[in-house]
Amino acid sequence: MTSLWRDPTAHVDDRVADLVSQMTVQEKVAQLSGVWWLEPGAGGMAPMLRESVGPLPSWEEVIEDGLGQLTRTFGTGPLEPAEGLQILADRQRGVMAANRFGIPALAHEECLTGLAVWRATIYPSPLCWAASFDPALVERMAGQIAGAMRSLGIHQGLAPVLDVVRDLRWGRVEETLGEDPMLIGMMASAYVRGLEDGGVVSTLKHFLGYSASRAARNLGPVSMGPRELADVILPPFEMALRAGARSVMNSYTDIDGVPAAADADLLTTLLRERLGFTGTVASDYFSVAFLQTLHHVADDLGAAAALSLEAGIDVELPSTNAFGDPLLAALAAGLVEEKVIDRALFRVLRQKCELGLLDPDWAPVEVTDVDLDPPESRAVALELARRSVVLLANDGSLPLAAGAPIAVIGPRADTSEAMLGCYSFPLHVLVHHPGVEDGVEIRTVREVLAETYDVTYALGCPVLGGEDADIEAAAAVAAAAEVCVVVLGDQAGLFGKGTSGEGCDVPDLDLPGRQEELLEALLATGTPVVAVLLVGRPYDLSRQVDRLAGLVCGFFPGEEGAQAIADVLSGRVNPSGRLPVSFPGAGSTQPSTYLASSLGRRNEVSVVDPTPLFAFGHGLSYATATWGGVSASSGPMWGTDGTCELVVQLANEADRDVSEVVQVYLHDRSASVVRPVQALVGAARIDLAVGRSARVSFTLSADLTSFTGRDLVRIVEPGEVELWVGASSTDIREVVALELVGPSRVVGVERVLEPVVRVELG
Amino acid sequence: MTSLWRDPTAHVDDRVADLVSQMTVQEKVAQLSGVWWLEPGAGGMAPMLRESVGPLPSWEEVIEDGLGQLTRTFGTGPLEPAEGLQILADRQRGVMAANRFGIPALAHEECLTGLAVWRATIYPSPLCWAASFDPALVERMAGQIAGAMRSLGIHQGLAPVLDVVRDLRWGRVEETLGEDPMLIGMMASAYVRGLEDGGVVSTLKHFLGYSASRAARNLGPVSMGPRELADVILPPFEMALRAGARSVMNSYTDIDGVPAAADADLLTTLLRERLGFTGTVASDYFSVAFLQTLHHVADDLGAAAALSLEAGIDVELPSTNAFGDPLLAALAAGLVEEKVIDRALFRVLRQKCELGLLDPDWAPVEVTDVDLDPPESRAVALELARRSVVLLANDGSLPLAAGAPIAVIGPRADTSEAMLGCYSFPLHVLVHHPGVEDGVEIRTVREVLAETYDVTYALGCPVLGGEDADIEAAAAVAAAAEVCVVVLGDQAGLFGKGTSGEGCDVPDLDLPGRQEELLEALLATGTPVVAVLLVGRPYDLSRQVDRLAGLVCGFFPGEEGAQAIADVLSGRVNPSGRLPVSFPGAGSTQPSTYLASSLGRRNEVSVVDPTPLFAFGHGLSYATATWGGVSASSGPMWGTDGTCELVVQLANEADRDVSEVVQVYLHDRSASVVRPVQALVGAARIDLAVGRSARVSFTLSADLTSFTGRDLVRIVEPGEVELWVGASSTDIREVVALELVGPSRVVGVERVLEPVVRVELG
Repeated sequence: MTSLWRDPTAHVDDRVADLVSQMTVQEKVAQLSGVWWLEPGAGGMAPMLRESVGPLPSWEEVIEDGLGQLTRTFGTGPLEPAEGLQILADRQRGVMAANRFGIPALAHEECLTGLAVWRATIYPSPLCWAASFDPALVERMAGQIAGAMRSLGIHQGLAPVLDVVRDLRWGRVEETLGEDPMLIGMMASAYVRGLEDGGVVSTLKHFLGYSASRAARNLGPVSMGPRELADVILPPFEMALRAGARSVMNSYTDIDGVPAAADADLLTTLLRERLGFTGTVASDYFSVAFLQTLHHVADDLGAAAALSLEAGIDVELPSTNAFGDPLLAALAAGLVEEKVIDRALFRVLRQKCELGLLDPDWAPVEVTDVDLDPPESRAVALELARRSVVLLANDGSLPLAAGAPIAVIGPRADTSEAMLGCYSFPLHVLVHHPGVEDGVEIRTVREVLAETYDVTYALGCPVLGGEDADIEAAAAVAAAAEVCVVVLGDQAGLFGKGTSGEGCDVPDLDLPGRQEELLEALLATGTPVVAVLLVGRPYDLSRQVDRLAGLVCGFFPGEEGAQAIADVLSGRVNPSGRLPVSFPGAGSTQPSTYLASSLGRRNEVSVVDPTPLFAFGHGLSYATATWGGVSASSGPMWGTDGTCELVVQLANEADRDVSEVVQVYLHDRSASVVRPVQALVGAARIDLAVGRSARVSFTLSADLTSFTGRDLVRIVEPGEVELWVGASSTDIREVVALELVGPSRVVGVERVLEPVVRVELG
Repeated sequence: MTSLWRDPTAHVDDRVADLVSQMTVQEKVAQLSGVWWLEPGAGGMAPMLRESVGPLPSWEEVIEDGLGQLTRTFGTGPLEPAEGLQILADRQRGVMAANRFGIPALAHEECLTGLAVWRATIYPSPLCWAASFDPALVERMAGQIAGAMRSLGIHQGLAPVLDVVRDLRWGRVEETLGEDPMLIGMMASAYVRGLEDGGVVSTLKHFLGYSASRAARNLGPVSMGPRELADVILPPFEMALRAGARSVMNSYTDIDGVPAAADADLLTTLLRERLGFTGTVASDYFSVAFLQTLHHVADDLGAAAALSLEAGIDVELPSTNAFGDPLLAALAAGLVEEKVIDRALFRVLRQKCELGLLDPDWAPVEVTDVDLDPPESRAVALELARRSVVLLANDGSLPLAAGAPIAVIGPRADTSEAMLGCYSFPLHVLVHHPGVEDGVEIRTVREVLAETYDVTYALGCPVLGGEDADIEAAAAVAAAAEVCVVVLGDQAGLFGKGTSGEGCDVPDLDLPGRQEELLEALLATGTPVVAVLLVGRPYDLSRQVDRLAGLVCGFFPGEEGAQAIADVLSGRVNPSGRLPVSFPGAGSTQPSTYLASSLGRRNEVSVVDPTPLFAFGHGLSYATATWGGVSASSGPMWGTDGTCELVVQLANEADRDVSEVVQVYLHDRSASVVRPVQALVGAARIDLAVGRSARVSFTLSADLTSFTGRDLVRIVEPGEVELWVGASSTDIREVVALELVGPSRVVGVERVLEPVVRVELG
């Protein structure tokens, strides 16, 4: 066996270069793809995608020259951890034995709402992380996820998703961190730190522009210019790359006619040359082949392979469709140069080397029983869920009086699936394994409420469809109760299997199915109605909101979600989540998010008013902090190369613990290009026990006011700006007017991306 | 009086340069704006816009240094032509007398659906022109419009609108020529030729991107990259500029953060340096001031003036808000150089010179009675309306049997306003003059049908709102009739005064108000229901279409529209209009037009299906042409620098005259960038009398396959393409597969934009 790692003193790059020099082109190409190895007859892959993989060769053929990656060994079917470990170990030994260099495969799994493997903790979905405004807790969660992955011998996780929501109709809104680039960047960076510090490669998805597809249709064309791309879509990636992410996944979409998977300007010039990224770029599943079959920019798979490899895709997932024989044929035909293959290979092997996969003593993880859902993970899942529940409206009916007779109604009231996003293992995979249980305990809202309340229950209607009689029966149950809690929302799922999730885009933001009818029927009873939303995206509640006793949004809060919801309803927890996405107002329309210029907001030149019902950053609490003064301690001047220190005083004068999310928005009065009316430049969640106070200071670099100017260079521009400091994007407590003074200044990729926040508790 | 035109032999440019050299900066600046002079207390301007004008100085102050333009002297209130002529003559004499050089103002008016002046012919709206696929007839119409304008001393008309529909929710869809750039270019060019050959300056609106605003909200931000701009939005302008348009108006919107009115790349580099435009660029009303007040890219009006003048706006309309004192102050402050003022002035004066306004013997038009709606204009209005009515669906109930008892129902059945777009004089101006009559005879559908049928009538409901009882009463009327004709649609108007028109964007494509309920009530009677749409945009009829006896779309067909509708319903006219915009299908969503790549159409990766109910180019007839062979006479090879001759054989084997619109679409199987599945590259309307046949040949330059490549240069790319030849975008009669052979070829702005079409009648 030829081996480079016999010289452990050699520098990684030298070792890898030497290894590259010894490989045949077949061996090289074999390192550049991952296979989703399905035993004949195995389920677990969406049928549509299964077709995309095409007929598979035998396992022996797949690995004969080596293998880059193993796709979802665990995450394809309901395997006990020990079973999966055995399969992975067997495959790794097979792979190592089959190639001259004994290189094992890099194993990756999905891990968006926790490791997407049977029996692993299902944490709240990303919209919940964002709603918590609590990066430290998200980092803890990601650290736990990394621990679970490491214990299974998994090296890379395909998360987080950094796409900035631009249109709420998109099915994948549930996977995102909302509509503000800074909030996304903060939360995604926390996740990345947790995963990477835990030794697992995090993968930033999707580079670049996926969320802005036309009419929010999955994979639809993206119309966008370079300024919006740089100022809205890119910043979360800049932040998460600095946090240490070692892999990036392309967007499926094209921007202005150029698919990301074929775009060297994106994947090489921007990502590597400008941002300095040195990790690997993995193709989103099947996206190399999609260059031929969906985008029609390649005549065949060989051309698709050449195009994407040249552009900067290093690894094809989850098949060798294009980066296998077609790539070899393209090489032979002169469509691609071997040095381009070597470039990708170098990155792949360097990452394997860093991960220890080239170490002489590397061996698969031993087969043991692993608890993938230990109590400490469930505790973090619960804490994050509790901090993410958003109390949208409350006429005083909440918290519910102890012991009151409650009618619990609705399609999401008594199903564990209501807690889960489409990348959770049960909804992503177990839909192909009917009858198999979730693998972790997931209680329902009905179950948890029944522990402390006298609960009567009726379904009312399913998420989609339903019968008049069932709605009437539910209304009768509500009429007989003192208060009605109706749990409405989405069924997450993939490609038509849900009302939210990948491929499950919607044409409008009405509640799915007959749920609005159900809600109206309950309201008509006269019983106070508290609506709980377990949703993948905001829906239009404008027609009912004024008649609701309370409105609570949980997004998909994970395996402990029901407890968190019940804790908020009962008042055991003081709600403190804040919206990372706006709820649409009456007559509003999409695309629309809070990040808009004045012409993208309500004005006199269009009768269509996009004002949201609940704005970005909104969230009520049962008890709140008292705001003291807000001031710029550095005075009204702010050098274009300087910093501004903003100080906010908070106190808890209430009779219970409170948690306040201080939000700082930049308003640029006038600039050389059109700017959003407001954009988040800082946020901090402050927990205050009874009687405590806090001095919160934000040290804001002038870099945070920078934007892409007329000549597409990022600048800090002098002039008048305002900092809007408040408890939501519309609940502004103080406007601090400042003047940026000094010359216009060009800022590079090294720019400051976040304020420094200091909290002094009193 | 100093005067240059005393030397009539001098070249125009020399004369103008000499004149410029003699002017003070006050005199220069005075030439660069038009004023909308309102006598104190006069109505006619939308209140919102009136505020934008601000307090006006006295007339003497306005003209003391000269005056560039007079805005809508006629088109602001209901003036008899002779009254208007008197006012214009007085004003012109005042202007000439007040400035040292005796230069009169250039007078402009709106003229989109005919001259927007009281008593002038109201032609069908632009969607109707496009539906006619009859450029020759549109050119005749525009020639008549020019004649009317010339007879009133008007020099410039603010039409046509070349914005490519990208989202049907936009209020101004009614002003456009639809969703295909080539169709728009063909029809707009015809209009431009008619106007310009008639001696009137045509104004191309809106340069560039207005129709692609976010969520279709008027003036909303435009997200777009350079390729879509070049390949979709720009081509109609290229075509119409070649047709001889001498003025261009900016778009109100920003593209990727840069407002068009402040964008030198658009207004100077692209428009003048690349496309060679030498005429004037006029600001859309108030758009210079909007740089400060809406876009916030200028701190004050002086900065706004400097920005827009530098960018390439030559004339501010309809006020001196920015190009008056603020521009002079900006000049004094060094914010703008005098040579930039001179550049605009030179263009303005050259146009005045060309128009004869600098001739020594120039004098205002004599005050006479002018018939602005003579029989020959009404005849063209009728013919164009007849050719534009689109028969969308017919179960055989149409044409209506002669003499049948018909219930005529609906909010648009018995009002002249149903025939009119928001730029017609009655709806644009007379809304501010309640009680004043339309000024031209406009019959209603009910009136015309009553001439030949036994008609009973009920309103059913207004366009918006309505009572249950009235819907029930209408249903009773329908139940008693043999057939029911229900006329549904829009009330056009400005800024909230309508359901279609400028500022009247919509959040969805449901029929306005309770009209769908009315339609359902009528369908429930069992009487066959023929629906007639008089609309500014397509609406969702998918829930009813299968139950309709017939469906006819008239858009806004003008003063003879009712006759045309009745002629189609009765069968006196064989319907032959074709849709220039798609009708939305069930569950489809916006933005969406037929001009989409495969990922913008129905596919497996999104559950949202944008397939239209009625596709672009669709339209039925009572009798149709028989299609013979379709062939490429030049064989299967097509040089990348060559032409392809496509031949289509048609025959009229029916028992009445037919009219067929032969449509040729390009399908590019694979290209270096993502391409639309199909795009119109040629169309020809062929009228065939009984027994006649035609050989229609399209000589297609390879330029017509060109697109903006990866490096943003327009190229013809070798490879396999198909020509889809048919009667609509979905009714394809023949696919002609061709191979583009030869090297990839760069094509410049001189590229061929239209095929040469030859028709040999047999």
